[in-house]
Amino acid sequence: MNVDLPNKNNDHPLYQQVADRLRQLMTEGTLQPGDRLPSVRKLHDQLSVSISTILEAYRVLEDQGWVHARSQSGYYVKSVATHTRAEPQQSTQLIPDQPIAVSLAYRVYASKRDPSLLQLGTAVPSPDLFPLAALNRLMGQVTRSEAPSIIHSYDVPAGSLKLRHEVARRLMDAGCALNPNELIITNGTTEAIYLCLQAVTQPGDTVAIESPTYYNLLEILNALHLKALELPTHPQTGVSLTALESALQNHQIAACVLIPNFNNPLGSCISDENKRSIAKLITQYNIPLIEDDVYGELNFEGNRPKAIKAFDTEGWVLYCSSMSKILSPGLRIGWCAPGRYQLKVEQLKMTMNLSTAVIPQLTIAAFLTNGGYDRHLRQLRRNFEMQVDRMTQAVYAHFPAETKITRPKGGFILWLEFPEQFDSLVLHEEALAQDIQISPGVMFSPSGNYRNCLRLTCGLPWSPKIEQAMETLGRLCKLQLARLILDREG
Amino acid sequence: MNVDLPNKNNDHPLYQQVADRLRQLMTEGTLQPGDRLPSVRKLHDQLSVSISTILEAYRVLEDQGWVHARSQSGYYVKSVATHTRAEPQQSTQLIPDQPIAVSLAYRVYASKRDPSLLQLGTAVPSPDLFPLAALNRLMGQVTRSEAPSIIHSYDVPAGSLKLRHEVARRLMDAGCALNPNELIITNGTTEAIYLCLQAVTQPGDTVAIESPTYYNLLEILNALHLKALELPTHPQTGVSLTALESALQNHQIAACVLIPNFNNPLGSCISDENKRSIAKLITQYNIPLIEDDVYGELNFEGNRPKAIKAFDTEGWVLYCSSMSKILSPGLRIGWCAPGRYQLKVEQLKMTMNLSTAVIPQLTIAAFLTNGGYDRHLRQLRRNFEMQVDRMTQAVYAHFPAETKITRPKGGFILWLEFPEQFDSLVLHEEALAQDIQISPGVMFSPSGNYRNCLRLTCGLPWSPKIEQAMETLGRLCKLQLARLILDREG
Repeated sequence: MNVDLPNKNNDHPLYQQVADRLRQLMTEGTLQPGDRLPSVRKLHDQLSVSISTILEAYRVLEDQGWVHARSQSGYYVKSVATHTRAEPQQSTQLIPDQPIAVSLAYRVYASKRDPSLLQLGTAVPSPDLFPLAALNRLMGQVTRSEAPSIIHSYDVPAGSLKLRHEVARRLMDAGCALNPNELIITNGTTEAIYLCLQAVTQPGDTVAIESPTYYNLLEILNALHLKALELPTHPQTGVSLTALESALQNHQIAACVLIPNFNNPLGSCISDENKRSIAKLITQYNIPLIEDDVYGELNFEGNRPKAIKAFDTEGWVLYCSSMSKILSPGLRIGWCAPGRYQLKVEQLKMTMNLSTAVIPQLTIAAFLTNGGYDRHLRQLRRNFEMQVDRMTQAVYAHFPAETKITRPKGGFILWLEFPEQFDSLVLHEEALAQDIQISPGVMFSPSGNYRNCLRLTCGLPWSPKIEQAMETLGRLCKLQLARLILDREG
Repeated sequence: MNVDLPNKNNDHPLYQQVADRLRQLMTEGTLQPGDRLPSVRKLHDQLSVSISTILEAYRVLEDQGWVHARSQSGYYVKSVATHTRAEPQQSTQLIPDQPIAVSLAYRVYASKRDPSLLQLGTAVPSPDLFPLAALNRLMGQVTRSEAPSIIHSYDVPAGSLKLRHEVARRLMDAGCALNPNELIITNGTTEAIYLCLQAVTQPGDTVAIESPTYYNLLEILNALHLKALELPTHPQTGVSLTALESALQNHQIAACVLIPNFNNPLGSCISDENKRSIAKLITQYNIPLIEDDVYGELNFEGNRPKAIKAFDTEGWVLYCSSMSKILSPGLRIGWCAPGRYQLKVEQLKMTMNLSTAVIPQLTIAAFLTNGGYDRHLRQLRRNFEMQVDRMTQAVYAHFPAETKITRPKGGFILWLEFPEQFDSLVLHEEALAQDIQISPGVMFSPSGNYRNCLRLTCGLPWSPKIEQAMETLGRLCKLQLARLILDREG
């Protein structure tokens, strides 16, 4: 790539002109998130300006958050999405006692192995992002080295102590000091949430949830004959504490379910201060809180956020997570730390399916022990950040100007909001006709809200096919908005 | 071993005398089930009788069911247990609307990996009986040859089509003509039963079950807030059809659950004629029937018995089974064919844990395709038959004369009945103190019946340790009965 400075003779200092030009290349998309910037020496040659000027230009870009330096490797484009557009607002309603209608969830989920569809709707990371060769090798080692009486027998309901030990060790990063005996291995986070909810409720009970929330949580509530109370939730700060306290005060609530870190679908992350307040609140009211932390380790910057469980002093938090977004969804390994409900959840696990398959458990344990988990996690976070950036940029480039979009600081999920009359169910059908799968907003609320919203997932590495699909989606959105205006006027 | 004929000069023909002597050696336990009989030539030398006489003696023993011939290999002891003692009677009560109390089940199940305990209580086959080297090798092949995007991704809720195809093929032996799309893969039979029951009931409903029945079924009913109606069940012929019909007529029944083949714990096997009647009956009343066939392939003689599903014309039977008693409980692979409830069960599977782990599914599929399944099954049936025989013989040798014992024609479970005052919970505690785990009868009934019964399982290859444990158990039983007599006499 050749870089030139079209306008050397203006008033700006030279390093500012260099920075301006590079910023322009990034805005136009010539330089994409994740791309390496030209080396200092190369730019020095091309632009005939001094090395110190170029270094100064890069320093400015880094300060402004456009690029980041990697040691020994140079400068990389960080985020071209400059968030000039609005974020969605906090959902305003506190909707009590919703019965759960069976949603689109099954249709969307069950389509995920349809090879003709481009999946921008389900929260499934590309297998290309996972250390599959290492996992397969470790699985071979497990089958060769472990006793057949261990790996081919029924496990105890709580699962492999080896794995529980490794998970307890990792959970220290989330601020949790747990004993392996406080953990129960499950078939993914979903089963963990299911078991915990079953342990703390009776049919007919009401459960407080974020709005919008993970669509399969609504299916679980439905299967367990529970009602939902939707709490207003902000795309940056998460569930409204005022609303939560009001719900606990004024409604008969049996339990809460929250996704505090890189919430699905909003991307919100609750601050430590608010997590502490939530833990205090539910302890005060003696209300069990089920915490879904499946995206907690996928932070883009700094340290992984703490879990609410870290602030739980009396065992009212039932913590749930898994390896499905980090190592392999296909191995179906998750866990929960159900606090004061430990025995009840263990009994329910036995009742449901006796125990979790052993070899997948020991394979994950082996990877956590010596598979280079931290190195893998660093790379995965970079990839997800990049994919979220690219997707955001594509929304900016192709979607109607009215489109609002979230700005998650972790995970790989985006939430889009269109003008009120917009119908994402129509978009969903139109997109399917073009072999593109998205998740319409109504899936994320038991009350049928969010018809003008949709969830886009960024689990796939960026590709021309996705770029093209985003162009198609943007065009379909624009066409629908145009139809809405014509209808109104005519 | 030296065989002699102490009494050559009696009235019996010589071949009868030879047969008598061998029968005596088997009754006394010198020759044990599974032992090879002395070769024809060896006996000819030892007894100084003609080869044709010895062949005739062996033919007589075979006709009488004492030995069986294996081609190229000789004669083997078949069954020493001559069933001189009574079987338990059909349970007489039809007990309606029992709420389910949480039972001993968890305590017994969760102890199964305790290496200090000899497990005669849980229905767990020894891993030594499974083709584990072949399974591990096939698992390696699966991880090498299948696409990572298949084996490490979320599966569709119904599970691998490859496995469903193989299972459908095997189910032809049970008289079922099923399409792979009519099957759903689950984490073992327990999960299959759980999902099917959840699909056809609402909290508060009543479910008709056999009495006694599989203890974890009672836990499932409890978790789903269901009540039980216990149907009288005979240790040979299974559930009473009269009682079933009366229950459907006179009670509000939401569903039935039956274990028709080699019932757990009674060992009963329903005849084809009665299976046909049951299918007709539930179709007539539009009542879904959940069929647990997990022991169906473990017949000792002839062909494996048919499933009730084979007689289901309108999709009211929800068939459930697994590989946990045949190939590997630790892989957690089961399935159901839920008939008219297919979509509902598939949705509930997604709700519960999205899908089953992929590599275990494909490993089982590979074994069913080319692992020598039929050969393995033949050997396994012989082993279980032998272990059941030895256990029966040990009961005869060491337990009180009043002990009644079932005579299953498949599976590996025995049910013992003692005089009415006997308390198997006491025996359970006393046995645990001797590091022996048994299953007290009360675990198998929601109404706390069968306190004078217990289940013994024969999943472990016979060993001096088991012989000794059976001696201990027998002694504990005799002591309790003696105490009861003393108490009665004052």
